[in-house]
Amino acid sequence: MKRLVILIPLLFISLFSQAQSNADSLFIKKISDEIMRNGKAYDLLYELTKKIGGRLAGSAQQQNAAIWGKRNLEALGADKVFMQPCKTPNWKRGGNDFAAIVGVHGESHIQPLAALALGNSMGSNGLLEAELVAVASMEELERRQQEVKGKIVYFHSVFDPTKIQTFRAYGESGIFRRSGASRAAKYGAIGVMIHSLSTAPDNAPHTGSMTYDEAYPKIPAVALGPNDAKMLYELAKKGSVRVQMQTHGYFLPDADENNVVAELRGSEFPDEYITLGGHLDSWDVNEGAHDDGAGIVQTMEVLRVMKALNYKPKRTIRFVLFANEENGMRGGNEYANQAKIKHENHIFAIESDEGGFTPRAIGISANKAAFAKFQSWTPLLKPYGTEVTLGGGGADVNPLAAVNPATVLAGLVPDSQRYFDLHHAPTDVFENVNKRELHLGAVNMAAIVYLIDQHGVNPSL
Amino acid sequence: MKRLVILIPLLFISLFSQAQSNADSLFIKKISDEIMRNGKAYDLLYELTKKIGGRLAGSAQQQNAAIWGKRNLEALGADKVFMQPCKTPNWKRGGNDFAAIVGVHGESHIQPLAALALGNSMGSNGLLEAELVAVASMEELERRQQEVKGKIVYFHSVFDPTKIQTFRAYGESGIFRRSGASRAAKYGAIGVMIHSLSTAPDNAPHTGSMTYDEAYPKIPAVALGPNDAKMLYELAKKGSVRVQMQTHGYFLPDADENNVVAELRGSEFPDEYITLGGHLDSWDVNEGAHDDGAGIVQTMEVLRVMKALNYKPKRTIRFVLFANEENGMRGGNEYANQAKIKHENHIFAIESDEGGFTPRAIGISANKAAFAKFQSWTPLLKPYGTEVTLGGGGADVNPLAAVNPATVLAGLVPDSQRYFDLHHAPTDVFENVNKRELHLGAVNMAAIVYLIDQHGVNPSL
Repeated sequence: MKRLVILIPLLFISLFSQAQSNADSLFIKKISDEIMRNGKAYDLLYELTKKIGGRLAGSAQQQNAAIWGKRNLEALGADKVFMQPCKTPNWKRGGNDFAAIVGVHGESHIQPLAALALGNSMGSNGLLEAELVAVASMEELERRQQEVKGKIVYFHSVFDPTKIQTFRAYGESGIFRRSGASRAAKYGAIGVMIHSLSTAPDNAPHTGSMTYDEAYPKIPAVALGPNDAKMLYELAKKGSVRVQMQTHGYFLPDADENNVVAELRGSEFPDEYITLGGHLDSWDVNEGAHDDGAGIVQTMEVLRVMKALNYKPKRTIRFVLFANEENGMRGGNEYANQAKIKHENHIFAIESDEGGFTPRAIGISANKAAFAKFQSWTPLLKPYGTEVTLGGGGADVNPLAAVNPATVLAGLVPDSQRYFDLHHAPTDVFENVNKRELHLGAVNMAAIVYLIDQHGVNPSL
Repeated sequence: MKRLVILIPLLFISLFSQAQSNADSLFIKKISDEIMRNGKAYDLLYELTKKIGGRLAGSAQQQNAAIWGKRNLEALGADKVFMQPCKTPNWKRGGNDFAAIVGVHGESHIQPLAALALGNSMGSNGLLEAELVAVASMEELERRQQEVKGKIVYFHSVFDPTKIQTFRAYGESGIFRRSGASRAAKYGAIGVMIHSLSTAPDNAPHTGSMTYDEAYPKIPAVALGPNDAKMLYELAKKGSVRVQMQTHGYFLPDADENNVVAELRGSEFPDEYITLGGHLDSWDVNEGAHDDGAGIVQTMEVLRVMKALNYKPKRTIRFVLFANEENGMRGGNEYANQAKIKHENHIFAIESDEGGFTPRAIGISANKAAFAKFQSWTPLLKPYGTEVTLGGGGADVNPLAAVNPATVLAGLVPDSQRYFDLHHAPTDVFENVNKRELHLGAVNMAAIVYLIDQHGVNPSL
């Protein structure tokens, strides 16, 4: 009898979980069919990119995007939608960025270079002209620090093309963009140029955020188009190169922006919050189609499909359009700050901010037991192209875990091969987003949010 | 002692296979690094698409492409390269295809429709004008057969957007393109229009192969751009629509083309052949960049990387640029025919003909024991984005299995979301191929060919 006593509960659990798994599988199929057939994310992305356009924090476009977002979330039938005020940086490019070669190996040689000032960088106060010091690493800069005074430093911050996960190459090369200017200013450089953080076989320059070390002069910094950067580096390896650069960046006082937050109230556990989102802001030089228009419209699509399928969540689901990620991370920080002030219990937060490409995984940061639970859902996601992998989050949702380490963080992980061809470049436009890929991302976001809503994050349940 | 006797060989095998697996892993990493860093597939694709262009069997471009292919395979260092003569169909479009609405619900209403004649279809012999009979299925055609005589039939052959594997939707809708004309001619229709076999939210028409049933008149057939097709169908559901169409297709006598075959001779088992390839021909209306320029240049890249890494294969590896797939499958059939005549022992053949997108799997058709062996290689491929999945092949390599059922067939399986946006349409051009995605496909092709070369296809070895 002893064995039977053990077996009956096991059998019961097994039958129950099989039935639940079948129900989950059927509901996720409904989600997918509805989104792939009737999804509106692509049309909404058209509006956001073509009718509103680039939307750097502090711009009129960013204000318009928040209003547009609120109106659409209301129209989609959220239980409530509110603006969450948030101060953001207010950096202005201030004019057309300029860079050129003016001398090569002692000879006059005029050649313009495709260039964009890095975000948050200060203007050059007129046209700078100097000899170039080209270095391939921070070690080389240290070694050649005596040569740098009064010069313009070029960092050959190329992507490592052998990294199949392109975000790893981005992580490695990113140091030059983020802190190259102050590292060079420390030794007296008057300006900095970097190779755009890109894999593209083209010449579009890629901007992106940088910060200054307050200990050193705030010298101007530009990213060069990949083809021009490689050409410049080859010239500099062979002898002296003289360059010019001019930028116009400056800060206005912080702007008053808003996170846009929509809610579907939970029926069983309304005090357990599940957040999904992307960021509304983008760089000023493009339409922010992949970064992060995609995450915004996927978030809206998850709300749309839940209403279309008449889904009543058990837990409270928050659909968040974060105000500012690119040059300050203020949106996510304010959202977490408010969660702390209001003692909200955030059990799970997922972000889509790696582009609207075919999804390949749901990356989840969790302890072993919880991860095992999430990973057991992989067969439910596999028909839609993803699996649950360890490690995930996003710049806007990560601050929630600083408030409460129990919050499970996750990120939608799309295929990353094309992302850094477009990221922060003028080429990040609507035309480079594929409708099916974008919508399939929304399918997987909706599926994981549904599973978390149904089963929570507690590994023993 | 008995246990020890058993354990020692097991231990030996286990250590050996672990060492082998490590060696394989290291070599595949070398393949990947070399291709992602120095790959030439993208540059070769530029030549094929921009300097040669669309290359329908029988065209001057197809002749040029074969010469270009042979020259490049020789330059890449194949042991030998030869032309394998092959007769191909020689269909000509013959002029600009035309379709238009000329009346809607009894009123005159002139509206041109984006249209391309289907490949192998016969010209209309002047301008046809007739009432439209719009049907959504073959069943509806049968049911309404009395209405069809003297009319132009429109098949609403839309893709099923809910199929995540887009090739399944293509398989379903394909019947209208392949045999819709004769099915309608049977009931007296004078022309046929179909919805392009595409998922794209645009209006580019997609051509593609069709065949006639000799029992019925060879009526003209066009594919309409997706937007126009949907608009036409909506109009036809509400009342009478009058349309015009004109096409000019005809056949010349079969052309003399060639499969281009390069070989690396095996050092241990030279009589065991491993074939990889793609097809040189494309439709006339585009550059055949994804279909199948990608497969061609990936095949060449596998040869390049093997020479660059000084790899000496155990078995004989054949790199084949097939002469004709699109409108006749003559290239693959002739290659298999020659294999039969020469009693070649083809153990494995893989094709890349699903576009130059991020690879997701190596699909292999094999019995259970052999498949288990191939599947055990998944951990070696996973870092490069693929896994071994059951079922695979390609139109050009499949005939080998008709000659010898023991030949293992395989196909590179890229992500399929974008393929049918471009397939057979004027939009299948170089600009829509991503370098990293294309090269990553070549990495996975090279990896599986290397593994087969090292370990063969025998499940017990």
